[in-house]
Amino acid sequence: MEQFSFYNPTRIEFGSGKEAEIGKHLAEHRISNVLLCYGSERIKREGLFDVVSRSLAEQGITFVELGGIVSNPVLSKVCEGIELARAHGVDAVLSVGGGSVLDSAKAIAAGAQYEGDVWDLFVGKGALTSALPLFAILTIAATGSEMNGYGVVTNEETQEKLSIGNDHTRPKVSILSPALMAGVSRDYLAYSAADIISHLIEVYFTATVQPKLQSRLVESLINTVIDTTRSLLDNPADDAARGEFAWAATLAQNGLTFSGCAGFGYPNHAIEHSLSALFNVPHGAGLSVVMPAWMKWYQEQNKSQFERFAKYVFGLPSAEEGIAALERWFVEIDTPIRLGQLGIQESDLPAIVANVQINVKAFGIADAYPPHVVTDILKRAL
Amino acid sequence: MEQFSFYNPTRIEFGSGKEAEIGKHLAEHRISNVLLCYGSERIKREGLFDVVSRSLAEQGITFVELGGIVSNPVLSKVCEGIELARAHGVDAVLSVGGGSVLDSAKAIAAGAQYEGDVWDLFVGKGALTSALPLFAILTIAATGSEMNGYGVVTNEETQEKLSIGNDHTRPKVSILSPALMAGVSRDYLAYSAADIISHLIEVYFTATVQPKLQSRLVESLINTVIDTTRSLLDNPADDAARGEFAWAATLAQNGLTFSGCAGFGYPNHAIEHSLSALFNVPHGAGLSVVMPAWMKWYQEQNKSQFERFAKYVFGLPSAEEGIAALERWFVEIDTPIRLGQLGIQESDLPAIVANVQINVKAFGIADAYPPHVVTDILKRAL
Repeated sequence: MEQFSFYNPTRIEFGSGKEAEIGKHLAEHRISNVLLCYGSERIKREGLFDVVSRSLAEQGITFVELGGIVSNPVLSKVCEGIELARAHGVDAVLSVGGGSVLDSAKAIAAGAQYEGDVWDLFVGKGALTSALPLFAILTIAATGSEMNGYGVVTNEETQEKLSIGNDHTRPKVSILSPALMAGVSRDYLAYSAADIISHLIEVYFTATVQPKLQSRLVESLINTVIDTTRSLLDNPADDAARGEFAWAATLAQNGLTFSGCAGFGYPNHAIEHSLSALFNVPHGAGLSVVMPAWMKWYQEQNKSQFERFAKYVFGLPSAEEGIAALERWFVEIDTPIRLGQLGIQESDLPAIVANVQINVKAFGIADAYPPHVVTDILKRAL
Repeated sequence: MEQFSFYNPTRIEFGSGKEAEIGKHLAEHRISNVLLCYGSERIKREGLFDVVSRSLAEQGITFVELGGIVSNPVLSKVCEGIELARAHGVDAVLSVGGGSVLDSAKAIAAGAQYEGDVWDLFVGKGALTSALPLFAILTIAATGSEMNGYGVVTNEETQEKLSIGNDHTRPKVSILSPALMAGVSRDYLAYSAADIISHLIEVYFTATVQPKLQSRLVESLINTVIDTTRSLLDNPADDAARGEFAWAATLAQNGLTFSGCAGFGYPNHAIEHSLSALFNVPHGAGLSVVMPAWMKWYQEQNKSQFERFAKYVFGLPSAEEGIAALERWFVEIDTPIRLGQLGIQESDLPAIVANVQINVKAFGIADAYPPHVVTDILKRAL
């Protein structure tokens, strides 16, 4: 085990209906005026907006709305949020939605307290030293953003998809209400499953120090995702499966699975972020394309761990069979496994490879992923 | 999944040598004068006391000592600590030791801010509404006390062994330094292993809502304890195993494994606490005696979960074989499995059974464990 610090003070409130208590949590943190961030108008049609605004009103908390945050959230919207937050002097940011809304909310919370251009914080030109307190009601489980400090945003002008975050942008309270997640489409359920699995395998396969305890936890969570995704595709009303799926998503990216590991990277994310940045594909769909290609390319570098994966996830004897089984499972749940399914052609590869170089630098793995390697990986996904 | 709140803001600093940073952590919390609790004088002989006092001095933090805290810690020592804390106006409590020292420190931290008799907080006559901030350096991994709010203390006069705790008595920072744990004797390593496993199986077997995700996490941790205990008995210098063992102990009792579960109890602890209270046996040794007996008595009530345990922990096909394998493993690591090995005779049973009635009441499981049931269970341990 490598040395580590584990500090995760986000309060998770898990349970259907708990969204009605959001006002109480904000009041406990002495919040009086909040920026309420959300995506589509669906939360208004389906009643969630009313529940939230009533809960805030009960505590005398006022709010300003920032709607229209999209998947693969963009910098321009973050800047709009920062202006709103400043103009109205809000003392907190509340995200009502999925990972994209929450990631935007994190950037807004940090940007509102940063004097310069918020993009400085993404490219390392400025330091994230404070942020408005952040609260979340999650409507789709996937990114794990609800229990960590990280957020990813795309700069539309530069076509860069980069991340910020530290303890300052960790939510104070995140409400995970499985009932709110029941409306997720089959597509997005599958993309979410791929996203969660990607969070679990990056460290698992790439770490130079990967204790067995952490491998076991990862396998427990992958097996949970596989089981519960199947259950939910069969029966979207399976509340127990919905809950386990959601909690697995949170645990997959809250520090638990990689504390004690060392020497790891996020190559699948580095590559996928370019697919989303350039082609606006759903993050999870991009990941289910990148992962099998990357695994086929990488497996020789850590054969025994790939054999472990095959054995403990799929009950299969070889690294190759484990990878093939994951790919088959992606097909089964109907998330793409080839670039063509995302509308990306071989002729697009040079632009992607160039963009990936920005990301591998940001992720600190540029040496291992020069352009010819990224090309090699992506060709396996054609 | 049942609804739950998960809030665990303890900062874990894991790594050999991190004990030298304790002063810095206290200074970050603006502590200037601390009650330093410890057990035997070993920490002075082996240099840890010097490391700690130097680290405190570097930050200008003064301290008062409370040494001599014993296993199965006693109320009289807690009262002595409370008096010292008050007399010297300390603004925090620092535990340097194992679970017994830390549990005492929790009771002192709470008692110092409670106007009445601290035992009131154990028996429900008073409410624990504040406590001095608490810090810990762990020298033995077992109880998980380093990342939860709970503490157990024995009242020598009444022979009651009861617990207190909530978020107020949760350590602010706990330092887990595997190198400090390397001096643990073979006996106590085995008792610790039994203690960790007991924390893992109580909810796992008794919960009426036990999601598969949580079962998988528990099995991951049990398998880690079994593997690393074997490694450490073979080679006490195996740092990797020492680290995994320690982190498994923390995760076994920090809320992770039971969040989302419901309807569970702690019958093994309720019974064992009476063995420690009356006969001063090591808690883990008492547990390795109680567990197989309880499992044999209880298995019919949750057959499928016992079959799961047999399969995923020992690779065996039946509930009975799983229990037998655990018992064999206790024999292998040389922790007792029968009351006689603890010096307890059949003639002692009535006194134990009577004492257990206090505990099952405190644990809220009195209805399921009337005297004849507890007698039945204990007879299986003769």
